[in-house]
Amino acid sequence: MRPTGKLHLGNYMGALHNWVRLQNRVQERVQDQIPDAYECFFFIADVHALTTDYADPERIPEFSREVVLDWLAAGLDPDKSTIFVQSHVKQHYELFGLLGMITPLGWLERVPTYKDQIENLQEKDLATYGFLGYPLLQSADILLYGVAGGSLHVPVGADQVAHVELTREVARRFNSLYSRGSLAEPQVLLTPTPKLPGTDGRKMSKSYGNVILLSDPEPEIRRKLKPMVTDPARVRRSDPGDPDRCPVGDLHKVFSSAAKLAEVYAGCTTAGIGCLECKGWLGDALVAELAPMGERRAYYEREPRRVEEILARGNAAAGVAAEATMVQVREAMGLPR
Amino acid sequence: MRPTGKLHLGNYMGALHNWVRLQNRVQERVQDQIPDAYECFFFIADVHALTTDYADPERIPEFSREVVLDWLAAGLDPDKSTIFVQSHVKQHYELFGLLGMITPLGWLERVPTYKDQIENLQEKDLATYGFLGYPLLQSADILLYGVAGGSLHVPVGADQVAHVELTREVARRFNSLYSRGSLAEPQVLLTPTPKLPGTDGRKMSKSYGNVILLSDPEPEIRRKLKPMVTDPARVRRSDPGDPDRCPVGDLHKVFSSAAKLAEVYAGCTTAGIGCLECKGWLGDALVAELAPMGERRAYYEREPRRVEEILARGNAAAGVAAEATMVQVREAMGLPR
Repeated sequence: MRPTGKLHLGNYMGALHNWVRLQNRVQERVQDQIPDAYECFFFIADVHALTTDYADPERIPEFSREVVLDWLAAGLDPDKSTIFVQSHVKQHYELFGLLGMITPLGWLERVPTYKDQIENLQEKDLATYGFLGYPLLQSADILLYGVAGGSLHVPVGADQVAHVELTREVARRFNSLYSRGSLAEPQVLLTPTPKLPGTDGRKMSKSYGNVILLSDPEPEIRRKLKPMVTDPARVRRSDPGDPDRCPVGDLHKVFSSAAKLAEVYAGCTTAGIGCLECKGWLGDALVAELAPMGERRAYYEREPRRVEEILARGNAAAGVAAEATMVQVREAMGLPR
Repeated sequence: MRPTGKLHLGNYMGALHNWVRLQNRVQERVQDQIPDAYECFFFIADVHALTTDYADPERIPEFSREVVLDWLAAGLDPDKSTIFVQSHVKQHYELFGLLGMITPLGWLERVPTYKDQIENLQEKDLATYGFLGYPLLQSADILLYGVAGGSLHVPVGADQVAHVELTREVARRFNSLYSRGSLAEPQVLLTPTPKLPGTDGRKMSKSYGNVILLSDPEPEIRRKLKPMVTDPARVRRSDPGDPDRCPVGDLHKVFSSAAKLAEVYAGCTTAGIGCLECKGWLGDALVAELAPMGERRAYYEREPRRVEEILARGNAAAGVAAEATMVQVREAMGLPR
């Protein structure tokens, strides 16, 4: 995940929530011998941030800290997962540099997101060597943590599948060029990434200023929900509404229990409840989800040295795993160990 | 220098000979307080070798060893210079990756050697991301060893001036983007690179099979000189010749003393000497130049652990210098130290 600062509900449901579940399957394995468990690596992609924000990197350190705090708050557990910072594990640069040698330019120019992004971010000058290479940097990020003969999964949404596919091609090319090459080919672990609406009804996104942060305290959550857009057809309190055409309804579907969701449908479609009451219930659900995170976040905010220790341990552990891959890559490519 | 295996006279006069002289100016500085002296860094560019030879890297380790032996034989002195292997100093990959973020693709596409090389080496598929980036890897190689506020010189021939110019542009862009950026802008130290003829009269080059190696023993040198091409207008022993139209004469100009060169001119233009005699004199000059190298090479061949120690010390020293630059680069670009 790039260091974008404090995370919001969209970031949470799009990735972090799934990561916590993946991580906890490891725990199940330990307890129940479930074979398909994952050893998880999660990192702050601070080098990736530079592919688009090279001209304005001042806040990367602060944004990285905020993301780590939100991860720990959301339940990523350093005793179960390896949590680290990309730029600290120098093997990412090394494998990126070496994979560049065998990667045709055309493969990178044809990555679907490449031209889209250049157009979407026209205010930034992205016709750089680094931006062209960012899917290959992702390939290095992935391939470093594979084990020859083992399986390697990347939890991504549909929009990132092409990047994993590129990574598979790069791994195959490496393995076919070098008799001693044995990079694991990664597989997509397609994770649901619901598009959460923000308070204005558009997709929740920091650039729209419509987000609810994981770190928002209860009064802030309720304050943000009050003016939230609802079913535009429900003009008066006495009009029946449609939760399927209502951003508040969309959030209920994600965060409320099945029982509460049934109440929402019943109340809204009969005008039995008003929108403010409905938002109150949503507030309850969000507070129930976020309050434990707030407590964990407060703990780690009071203990910055604990966070530093966690990252130092994660950086070291990731370095050991990455180095094991690099020893093989160097040997395959005729470089000293 | 790329690891191309045993070096020949062309490699020697094109680079190594100049390096030994540069290095020894350091010694003069120590003894005579001469201010314009150089602290020298020389490295085996094994990562660069992969930009063109990624498909066939098996011999890189052997070729690297041979080059180091020739360097030590020619007089590069680990007590005066830092001698190291590029791939061991991971900061080269790191700075390459980070400079990519700020380097416009167009700067790399317009490097004069880029399209030339792709055409010259058509049997290799060079339309790769790494090959496009190789001048930027060179920039990283150079900029790592600068000191903010200090001067930084790169001893190159005329064909490499464009690469140093690119490096200056990259450094300027870095310094203008980041208020805390202070990469030293390198300057070209233009070194004479005479085109030595090989034994067939064409440019001395391994691919022509016309080279005299620095490590050739005396009988081998004399054996190679015997059939060497001479002034084609001198058909018979009694014909006068022209040393300026003779490959043997060209080598005399580089390797023989002024007095001996005068004898060559006098003898050749009057048919006072035959070509075999002239080649004998050239053999004497080459043996005088190469015999001390052969002795030093024999010593290091008998002491491979001494060579390993030299490289280990050089790798460590280069790493310290490179890390000092990277600490500043990371801070400028918003990355943790």
